[in-house]
Amino acid sequence: MIQGGWKRIMSAINILYAQSGGVTPVINASASGVISQARAHDDQIGHVYAAKDGVMGILQERLIDTQDLSAAEVVGLRHTPGGVFGSCRYKLGDPAKDPADYARLVEVLTAHKIDVLLYNGGNDSADTTQKVAQYCKEVGAPIRCIGVPKTIDNDLALTDNSPGFGSVAKYVAVSILEASLDVMSMASSSTKVFIMEVMGRHAGWIAAAGGLAAQGPGDPPQIILFPERPFNEAQFCEAVKRSVEQHGYCSIVVSEGVRDAEGQFLADAGTTDAFGHKQLGGVAPVVANIVAQNLGYKYHWAVSDYLQRSARHVASATDAEQAYAVGQFAVDMALQGMTGQMPVIVRDSDTPYKWHIEPADVAQIANHEKVVPDHFITEDGFGITEAARRYLAPLIAGEDYPPYDATGLPAYVRPQFTLLEKRCPAWAK
Amino acid sequence: MIQGGWKRIMSAINILYAQSGGVTPVINASASGVISQARAHDDQIGHVYAAKDGVMGILQERLIDTQDLSAAEVVGLRHTPGGVFGSCRYKLGDPAKDPADYARLVEVLTAHKIDVLLYNGGNDSADTTQKVAQYCKEVGAPIRCIGVPKTIDNDLALTDNSPGFGSVAKYVAVSILEASLDVMSMASSSTKVFIMEVMGRHAGWIAAAGGLAAQGPGDPPQIILFPERPFNEAQFCEAVKRSVEQHGYCSIVVSEGVRDAEGQFLADAGTTDAFGHKQLGGVAPVVANIVAQNLGYKYHWAVSDYLQRSARHVASATDAEQAYAVGQFAVDMALQGMTGQMPVIVRDSDTPYKWHIEPADVAQIANHEKVVPDHFITEDGFGITEAARRYLAPLIAGEDYPPYDATGLPAYVRPQFTLLEKRCPAWAK
Repeated sequence: MIQGGWKRIMSAINILYAQSGGVTPVINASASGVISQARAHDDQIGHVYAAKDGVMGILQERLIDTQDLSAAEVVGLRHTPGGVFGSCRYKLGDPAKDPADYARLVEVLTAHKIDVLLYNGGNDSADTTQKVAQYCKEVGAPIRCIGVPKTIDNDLALTDNSPGFGSVAKYVAVSILEASLDVMSMASSSTKVFIMEVMGRHAGWIAAAGGLAAQGPGDPPQIILFPERPFNEAQFCEAVKRSVEQHGYCSIVVSEGVRDAEGQFLADAGTTDAFGHKQLGGVAPVVANIVAQNLGYKYHWAVSDYLQRSARHVASATDAEQAYAVGQFAVDMALQGMTGQMPVIVRDSDTPYKWHIEPADVAQIANHEKVVPDHFITEDGFGITEAARRYLAPLIAGEDYPPYDATGLPAYVRPQFTLLEKRCPAWAK
Repeated sequence: MIQGGWKRIMSAINILYAQSGGVTPVINASASGVISQARAHDDQIGHVYAAKDGVMGILQERLIDTQDLSAAEVVGLRHTPGGVFGSCRYKLGDPAKDPADYARLVEVLTAHKIDVLLYNGGNDSADTTQKVAQYCKEVGAPIRCIGVPKTIDNDLALTDNSPGFGSVAKYVAVSILEASLDVMSMASSSTKVFIMEVMGRHAGWIAAAGGLAAQGPGDPPQIILFPERPFNEAQFCEAVKRSVEQHGYCSIVVSEGVRDAEGQFLADAGTTDAFGHKQLGGVAPVVANIVAQNLGYKYHWAVSDYLQRSARHVASATDAEQAYAVGQFAVDMALQGMTGQMPVIVRDSDTPYKWHIEPADVAQIANHEKVVPDHFITEDGFGITEAARRYLAPLIAGEDYPPYDATGLPAYVRPQFTLLEKRCPAWAK
């Protein structure tokens, strides 16, 4: 018995969890999965720490002990959008040229007796995961690094889909369906063209999801503008005109990343303010002006921006479940001694939708951007194919509502944290 | 028995229901209430017709018999956004100067043996309801006209609140809460200011609803910009700066109707496109540029536009219930022989929230625009008071989700209609 107890303490590992890059409606579900799974294995896992504000928090030694979270808060994280520990945009350089950041990471992790870093992010984070894992091996630091996939953009390689995408996809499909019902009601005497801008700077997955709203021929959205297809003004105007003549209105989803034939972002070609300054962002008003000038139709446009990325109130149940599951799985991988790996989602079948999770080498994920393949986009470039529909549909299936309080607002958790006492000198950088 | 049957037919009235102006997430719930209540009184009510595309459909004699709708479709209307029969923006003139439209209405209604017009709309529609009722009295046409209240703007006089507003209010409060959780996660290294534009050209009720997301001091949104307060750039920038310094970020809700001290819409002062054309709409990017130029903070902005007005997926249960109830009540009023009246919502108490419906004279509603009162706006002009919170909170209470189908989309109904055979000459206008 005494020996067993001794063995338990000897083998217990400490984990540091960090959120990275743009947050998603379900990144906190992954956090919840990590913490829950670790608590379920408290014979093998000591502390689960979290970095405040992502990798910046590690470098600055701003760390939290997740044991501060009550059981109810851990459950609450599963349905709370945003990044509860804070995230950041900070890209670590090449360790061969600039090893200072990596040395600092090792210093902080070592000072807090951390064995495994779980890094929850997208493409850049997969790259960081690989570099940290590699660096630790090379310098002989007994620290492992495991990725946890996340990105609304769905552009991660190897994994069938990325946690976070399904919920944004559901938001976009539901929203364009609803707004289209609105515009079709009014079109006979008022607005004829509605344009909804969605995220996806380099890959059109989110825009493609808008196509799920169309359940039969002619259904809205009649036009999707993908970053994978150069914008052709004449063909676009012709398609808008055809839709208005056929259906009385035209409903459009446009990706923020749409470019012209020269590769310039349409949004940048865009607008200047009253002072002559170029206005940042907003491809929807640019497209609206193209409609107005060429066709003269009355239009409305929406830019959902962060609303789409945080709309936990209309999350996909599939997505929430997968986000939680990759968090749990990453803890299992940590217990199995892995490093430089990331759990990925593997699709076993479309109908019925079946999937499982398995580990994959982050080196094969990092720096590969998965765009929407040609056979997912219709020949005219304005719609999604049946193949796309088969792929996308299961990802938005199921509703997973947050609980609401009596005031009619979702009961999102906002835990208060105490930073751990610092053990290292201040970060020089 | 025979006499009873004869009496029944003699007293049965026919109703024509029409939707008017901008649609709401719950205007179809009112339609559902009208049709359900009429079906429950089929001993007193013959046909319930509906105008295709609002009053334009009456003038053009494009009418539908709602008996074409299955019972399931009538139930489905209760949770379907948009205007299922179509709506329009067409303002009838002054009957004293231009009686042609009114004469045409009477011609069409008479040809189809319609006894009561139920006109579902906002301020302009209340005005129309009054004029039609008055005109029919004056010319001795046995046609009555009853209003059914609806407007997301909540600017109707007499009624405590307007059906449609509560659901938009809930959408805005939930959305700014979620987006604020997003921006606060990222603020340490990225976006510090988030701006969400909402509707409300002349009254700031929708913007005010954003304030419900703040449940304690310092909670987001830290700033609300009301059309009821002239925009002061210096004070605004000072408030943004203070919020970023105190909280690390600033979350802003701006009404599309915000004006400068000279009364000019900020959105109009706005932007021009690459061709030098003035760009219509979008006060959010204008405010974003003010932040960028004066303070240099990284920002994001969203314009939810029609998305807010059609977001049935996050409807307020209170609102859906009231929208349905005013439809039912209007039928009861029709059966009681009323004309020139509209059902209004009367608040009996805030806590617990209690309300009832009673008839009111449309003349007292028409052309009165109810703006947000002074005591609902904090002294600095950027927030809502406790009085506002007491008024607004019950209106977003409760969730009333639409059913979803297996594909993960709301099961909204889209009935197919057959237009009635025309009985009048074509409309000359």
